[in-house]
Amino acid sequence: MADAPARTELKVTTGAIRGSRKIHVGPLKVAMRSVDLEPSSGEPPLNLYDTSGPYTDPEARIDIMAGLPELRAPWIRGRGDVEEVLARETRPEDNGQLGPDRSGGVAPFPNVRKRVLRAKPGANVSQMHYARRGIITPEMEYVAIRENIGREMLKDHVRDGEDFGAEIPDHVTPEFVRSEVARGRAIIPNNINHPESEPMAIGRNFLVKINANIGNSAVASDVAAEVDKMVWSIRWGADTVMDLSTGRNIHDTREWIIRNSPVPIGTVPIYQALEKVGGVAEDLTWEVYRDTLIEQAEQGVDYFTIHAGVRLPYIPMTADRVTGIVSRGGSIMAKWCLAHHRESFLYERFDEICEIMAAYDIAFSLGDGLRPGSIADANDEAQFAELFTLGELTKRAWARDVQVMIEGPGHVPMHKIKVNMEKQLEACGEAPFYTLGPLTTDIAPGYDHITSGIGAAMIGWYGTAMLCYVTPKEHLGLPDRDDVKVGVVTYKLAAHAADLAKGHPAAKLRDDALSRARFDFRWRDQFNLSLDPDTAEQYHDQTLPAEGAKTAHFCSMCGPKFCSMKISAEVREFAKANPPPVCPELVEGRSSTPLPPAGGAGGGPVVSPEDAEAGMAEMSKRYRDEGGELYVPAD
Amino acid sequence: MADAPARTELKVTTGAIRGSRKIHVGPLKVAMRSVDLEPSSGEPPLNLYDTSGPYTDPEARIDIMAGLPELRAPWIRGRGDVEEVLARETRPEDNGQLGPDRSGGVAPFPNVRKRVLRAKPGANVSQMHYARRGIITPEMEYVAIRENIGREMLKDHVRDGEDFGAEIPDHVTPEFVRSEVARGRAIIPNNINHPESEPMAIGRNFLVKINANIGNSAVASDVAAEVDKMVWSIRWGADTVMDLSTGRNIHDTREWIIRNSPVPIGTVPIYQALEKVGGVAEDLTWEVYRDTLIEQAEQGVDYFTIHAGVRLPYIPMTADRVTGIVSRGGSIMAKWCLAHHRESFLYERFDEICEIMAAYDIAFSLGDGLRPGSIADANDEAQFAELFTLGELTKRAWARDVQVMIEGPGHVPMHKIKVNMEKQLEACGEAPFYTLGPLTTDIAPGYDHITSGIGAAMIGWYGTAMLCYVTPKEHLGLPDRDDVKVGVVTYKLAAHAADLAKGHPAAKLRDDALSRARFDFRWRDQFNLSLDPDTAEQYHDQTLPAEGAKTAHFCSMCGPKFCSMKISAEVREFAKANPPPVCPELVEGRSSTPLPPAGGAGGGPVVSPEDAEAGMAEMSKRYRDEGGELYVPAD
Repeated sequence: MADAPARTELKVTTGAIRGSRKIHVGPLKVAMRSVDLEPSSGEPPLNLYDTSGPYTDPEARIDIMAGLPELRAPWIRGRGDVEEVLARETRPEDNGQLGPDRSGGVAPFPNVRKRVLRAKPGANVSQMHYARRGIITPEMEYVAIRENIGREMLKDHVRDGEDFGAEIPDHVTPEFVRSEVARGRAIIPNNINHPESEPMAIGRNFLVKINANIGNSAVASDVAAEVDKMVWSIRWGADTVMDLSTGRNIHDTREWIIRNSPVPIGTVPIYQALEKVGGVAEDLTWEVYRDTLIEQAEQGVDYFTIHAGVRLPYIPMTADRVTGIVSRGGSIMAKWCLAHHRESFLYERFDEICEIMAAYDIAFSLGDGLRPGSIADANDEAQFAELFTLGELTKRAWARDVQVMIEGPGHVPMHKIKVNMEKQLEACGEAPFYTLGPLTTDIAPGYDHITSGIGAAMIGWYGTAMLCYVTPKEHLGLPDRDDVKVGVVTYKLAAHAADLAKGHPAAKLRDDALSRARFDFRWRDQFNLSLDPDTAEQYHDQTLPAEGAKTAHFCSMCGPKFCSMKISAEVREFAKANPPPVCPELVEGRSSTPLPPAGGAGGGPVVSPEDAEAGMAEMSKRYRDEGGELYVPAD
Repeated sequence: MADAPARTELKVTTGAIRGSRKIHVGPLKVAMRSVDLEPSSGEPPLNLYDTSGPYTDPEARIDIMAGLPELRAPWIRGRGDVEEVLARETRPEDNGQLGPDRSGGVAPFPNVRKRVLRAKPGANVSQMHYARRGIITPEMEYVAIRENIGREMLKDHVRDGEDFGAEIPDHVTPEFVRSEVARGRAIIPNNINHPESEPMAIGRNFLVKINANIGNSAVASDVAAEVDKMVWSIRWGADTVMDLSTGRNIHDTREWIIRNSPVPIGTVPIYQALEKVGGVAEDLTWEVYRDTLIEQAEQGVDYFTIHAGVRLPYIPMTADRVTGIVSRGGSIMAKWCLAHHRESFLYERFDEICEIMAAYDIAFSLGDGLRPGSIADANDEAQFAELFTLGELTKRAWARDVQVMIEGPGHVPMHKIKVNMEKQLEACGEAPFYTLGPLTTDIAPGYDHITSGIGAAMIGWYGTAMLCYVTPKEHLGLPDRDDVKVGVVTYKLAAHAADLAKGHPAAKLRDDALSRARFDFRWRDQFNLSLDPDTAEQYHDQTLPAEGAKTAHFCSMCGPKFCSMKISAEVREFAKANPPPVCPELVEGRSSTPLPPAGGAGGGPVVSPEDAEAGMAEMSKRYRDEGGELYVPAD
């Protein structure tokens, strides 16, 4: 046999995340990663939720020309409600080629499916539809195992958090996932034509998720770079990725991304529809839009942002705004509505759109086309008018068993964030909220991952189910690889801070494990447990680069002689034999009165400072007798 | 006359902040900076609060060998209650030189004062003392003008914020400043031996302030680098700077910093005291500590962190913590207390310390030596036991007319932040709270400026008066110049987000001006109004470097054809002649019911979507007739 012709190898970022082992749990082989801790810790490995897919599995063979394995294919076909149909033929305009292509082009994905899946006539293949019929799908089982991460380690767990009415279970069962999807409080976005995806849930009673946006680059022909943006995002924790490409080659680029993505992919179909009509919003038609939905549905897009709430009468409400309409989709539809003086075709054709969504199990991400683009415009009439329409549309989608989440702002000062969540819950019947930030001030371009990370953590705490990331380049330019990573990690920490504050049972395990490692000077464990082990180690090494410093029982801030952690360890050694005085009045949540007087009665044995002091005399003497110094040399 | 010998020029960062003009307002010449906007905006210049001192004034002659002009000297001497005394002589141990100096040394500041100021016997020179006697000092007047920044631009200002019981005035008068200082709700930290400082206030009813920490570098002989860390911090907005140096040359380094600092300088005197006893905590004595206080008081340190709340009986309360005692000062004192089995000398000698503070007008920053170092330890008994003692000490200091602020945590999950503020207000009688973050999760080393920026913005909103910054290197290494800048800007945006949410009358002016610039594609104005104009412009230029792009009416995210801001401007043009339908039920704060039915009665003229739609027919026709396109070419 002759050798196969050598083909250009298209590379993306692979390799294990530093300090993590890929594991696959149970018969469904649910992907997680596990961090082994130093033997001296006496602690078991900590399993972490993992979005990174096979790319971080050294055992996996990665070939982006072939795409990922079709994990869900047998589950989808096994339900017997889909049929194979001939795929819609790709046209030049799908790739934005209305005239001669000067872009250099994108090579089509090598194995584009000629036949795609669609629900059989009359069938509905949405997870919501199954859930409402009492069916627990493998997707729901996968989600349950995935979400339970670490909870098996909890013994005598005391819930500590404020969840504002969420109903987070101690243990996530497949039945719980089903019931959440059935009542619309969670979605599992997974198009039947994206069988490569690892199921995940977006909902207030699950871990807070984050989305990263990518878009086609100026050098459109570099397919590997496009795919790598997605791979890079999920490596650092993006739970879903939106492809916001515009312009040339978007159809082919999207195909490459979806075939290689283990996370749900979202799009804004109006962007591509607009390309098909030469960028003239007035020339958009329902037919062009509908054709675009089918095109993307067949490719496997998992959720569509659809700005169906930008109704004609709301548009003038934006006239006095400082920043008008800042949503691209919203402004396109606003322009269309004004030009035609007609109600939005997205609103008028909503039921037809639902039929398409149900036939492929695509989730709605109902777009907030009138979201505020500045602090001045937050929480105004236009914004909430649209929100209530999104609530109306949610109910219409639910009536057809179509999954829905709701997009939210934007730019909102801190004191106006909570009411956004409250109105959304009320207007949209607890459908998952999916917000962009919000940015809590307008004055820090270049740092809007942080201005928005503040708002994201807060609204995540209040109940937002997924946070759309913002990069440092927001408002200024196109994010590069570093910006994407910073944006993802910032949002990951915001989402985790929200999980902690909500009292998610397993969230605190990771904080505690990392803090114990910090206190014990287990530097490697501290790095490996962090959201970004590479940066943590690099920052450490900038001051103390020697390998020995990673096992040293001190750090660079204070040096070996003057270390509060070390002194504190001595205090612990000394004090642990001595029960501390109990001052129940001082414990958080009970009261805030000052120290009780000596001998004061309370809910428990109250020891006054004076009594406690006396009782410590013996201990103190022993401490001095024993040398008063505890230095544990590094192993 | 012979030429003076050439001396090495010691340089620090100077030059105007991009896009800003230095201005000096009124007879007290209160320093501010002013941003001129493009003439097309039709807007007046926006004045901004400015911490950067003469370094950003092109007219100022900067010579760090000479130090800054003594702005406050005539005010201090004019009160007639100070005397000149011979300065305490510097000893080798003040610079940590107990043995041979191998550090290379630091050149002493050239013009160290031989004579320093001290209150006349029996006098109290604290701003609180004057305030309580009804005296409005020039320092208070300066603060009033400084804090009023921009408020004169407000017409028909409607307060929009939630201030949790703060009492922020519409206009800050000198009398208001006096009354806040008198009742202890604000402090003006300014040692009479630091006449170079520009007065500023720390209090819940003033703008939220931020502090940057610096410390001596490994290459201790580079004095200019040390001074430049301070200059660099204040350039980006640090309101105060803490010198946390340990080890060699700290006395001389501090002298250089104070003589060149226009902002208050804080220290933790126990660090230097510990150096004087060779780093052995048990060997600390009240005499060594007292001597250190005098030494630093005479140099001009404006506030001292003193961990007087770490009482002996509280130490065992930390034994079961995940991270024990993480405060350096706290752990030193804990070790001392255990070793001697005695109550802390800081607690026992508190009244004597107050006498020193009053004689130089140094403010207490009562240290939180038992603050939590991890999420697990937040809000525990040890933390609150200490807080109540700090409250007791506050009252003792106030009884002697000594200014006080209270340090706070640390690591606190979001749902436990607010109670920290509430307990502090109650326990400490509204003395200003000064917190380190707090960090809202432990899992992101390398990003702790962000984990803590979230907590800082929230606690600033709740009422914290000053936020101590955290850099990306926290827990990992020593911050470099870039880290310091990122830390300062992050905290500046957090403080501003807090001011916005509190409803500070002038805060929103800057957001609105920047957002208008953004909407108008006034790129230069957008950069110049931002917290970091250099980074904003640099990020913009990475995608669209040409100078013309800065006046282009589009940006790099969407390009010229597809710009939501541009479309939105069209919408505004069209709609502005058409009053939008009023749906009062939808306006924030009134109700959250869905859209009222057509013709529904309400608090105002309610227009249903249908009616509004009908009314827009005429407008829509006109829009199309006029071309349906509005492209304003760049000038």
